[in-house]
Amino acid sequence: MDEGIVFTGDEFVRPEEASFSIFDAGLVWGDAVYDVTSSWNNWIFRLDEHLERFQCSVEGFRLNNPYNHDEMRRICAECVSRSGLQNAYIKVQLTRGLIKNQTSQLSWQGDCKFITYAMPYVWIWGEKKSKDGGNLFVSNVERISSNAVDQRFKNYNRADLVQSRFEAYDNNCDDSLLCGPDGYLTEGPGYNVFLVKGGNIYTPSSNILEGITRLTVRELCDMEHIDLNETNIYPNELQEADEIFCSTSAGGILPVTQLNSIPIGNGHKGLITSRLQKLYWKKRDKGWHGTHIDDLI
Amino acid sequence: MDEGIVFTGDEFVRPEEASFSIFDAGLVWGDAVYDVTSSWNNWIFRLDEHLERFQCSVEGFRLNNPYNHDEMRRICAECVSRSGLQNAYIKVQLTRGLIKNQTSQLSWQGDCKFITYAMPYVWIWGEKKSKDGGNLFVSNVERISSNAVDQRFKNYNRADLVQSRFEAYDNNCDDSLLCGPDGYLTEGPGYNVFLVKGGNIYTPSSNILEGITRLTVRELCDMEHIDLNETNIYPNELQEADEIFCSTSAGGILPVTQLNSIPIGNGHKGLITSRLQKLYWKKRDKGWHGTHIDDLI
Repeated sequence: MDEGIVFTGDEFVRPEEASFSIFDAGLVWGDAVYDVTSSWNNWIFRLDEHLERFQCSVEGFRLNNPYNHDEMRRICAECVSRSGLQNAYIKVQLTRGLIKNQTSQLSWQGDCKFITYAMPYVWIWGEKKSKDGGNLFVSNVERISSNAVDQRFKNYNRADLVQSRFEAYDNNCDDSLLCGPDGYLTEGPGYNVFLVKGGNIYTPSSNILEGITRLTVRELCDMEHIDLNETNIYPNELQEADEIFCSTSAGGILPVTQLNSIPIGNGHKGLITSRLQKLYWKKRDKGWHGTHIDDLI
Repeated sequence: MDEGIVFTGDEFVRPEEASFSIFDAGLVWGDAVYDVTSSWNNWIFRLDEHLERFQCSVEGFRLNNPYNHDEMRRICAECVSRSGLQNAYIKVQLTRGLIKNQTSQLSWQGDCKFITYAMPYVWIWGEKKSKDGGNLFVSNVERISSNAVDQRFKNYNRADLVQSRFEAYDNNCDDSLLCGPDGYLTEGPGYNVFLVKGGNIYTPSSNILEGITRLTVRELCDMEHIDLNETNIYPNELQEADEIFCSTSAGGILPVTQLNSIPIGNGHKGLITSRLQKLYWKKRDKGWHGTHIDDLI
């Protein structure tokens, strides 16, 4: 944590200097939303769409954002620029801040605290496994229902994801997939999931974060004339898939080569997964859907 | 927030000085547990039981507590003593701390951060309403299922509670009650709930924090020869109750005199509620189930 830059709302500081109150409702009430994108060769990926989704999360949680869209764009670019990182993991975050009087409705408006930072690019399973394939565990922990916390709003109520990850580690897997209260597959800790079967692709349709990399997969599928279907998927359909992959800002398109330590297909990165992954990185290298930081500062 | 004392693990500081890293997994992953008790006339209420439950939450979340039971007892007493508050709200909290390398299983052990503080005693709905009666709203927001985040472990994944409270405010109510995924009544933001009907008392049995004040209500009922039943309760049974009350560390026994702005019974604090509330405070005044801070420091 020695690289990167944090904007605290007042100033740009080093990560180890970035702190906030232990009374912030973001911690104490899980009252916080965030969003993540990345820069690649100083091109920030789909910045407007990430910031628009972030603002939806802000409003969904009834928080108040002290910054508008254009200001956030500039702050993100400024963090990347000051960090000196060509390839960065970029997070925007809003917590409710301090609630001065818990029993006053007005106080519950809070004193919302906006934070943005740029850190070295994150490969969610490490670079090698994120590129070549991971071993996922289908968790017994249920994903928090959207009836309780609307999963369209990217938020920090993620204890279910943490416990599912521990369960995966217990079973010698790299990470996890969770089902929702209706028994259908949802997502993993920070990624959407896709099945390839008979040349078509299927992905869960509900109780998920509607990932922007997931949206990007749809675009890539259109380019490659592959059919992508949003649908209900039972977890037992996973083992019968020809290929499985995941999508996330923190690694792009991630092959899944084993499920519960049993090989998927031939146990190697699938052909369609490879095609989409190659296309994704070829286009990212050229600044696809990118906003160059020099155009913002 | 000008009164009180915080123990940060290293030192005792004033509340406004107590900060932690924005990268703490307690925030970023909702990976944090806590517990709350109170001191009254310098007697800490059921300290051992609260700390034992806290340790269950710690283990349930697979966190590592740097302090043992006796050390935590002394830290709590020291916070109360240093705060100079005769009546204090006392919280213990453990967050996972920093995860140095997200892709390393070992890193996920974290660098857990223990915090304790004593603040002025909290009346959850303000002193008057907490004593005389509140107006609760039965929320459309679902309580997070114990299948996702085990509600026996007191934790900060509470965005559902926040949104239900906003919904209550929208409807001119003071606070909320939530149902679980099975449609049964669970609890409110920080309290258990009880119905009185035909001289007997009923309280939800599942998807709840098993409150220590709730346990105390059972003891008071035994003393008063009132039958207390843990059972499944549908929300529509609330309106037919003779009385409703809640239990919490932050106010003791709280009468509920209106539900969705409709009076319960005659719209005043009920007779059984009054009896239990009086008995609770009479006993608290005398140091019931208490550990005196002078015996610990």
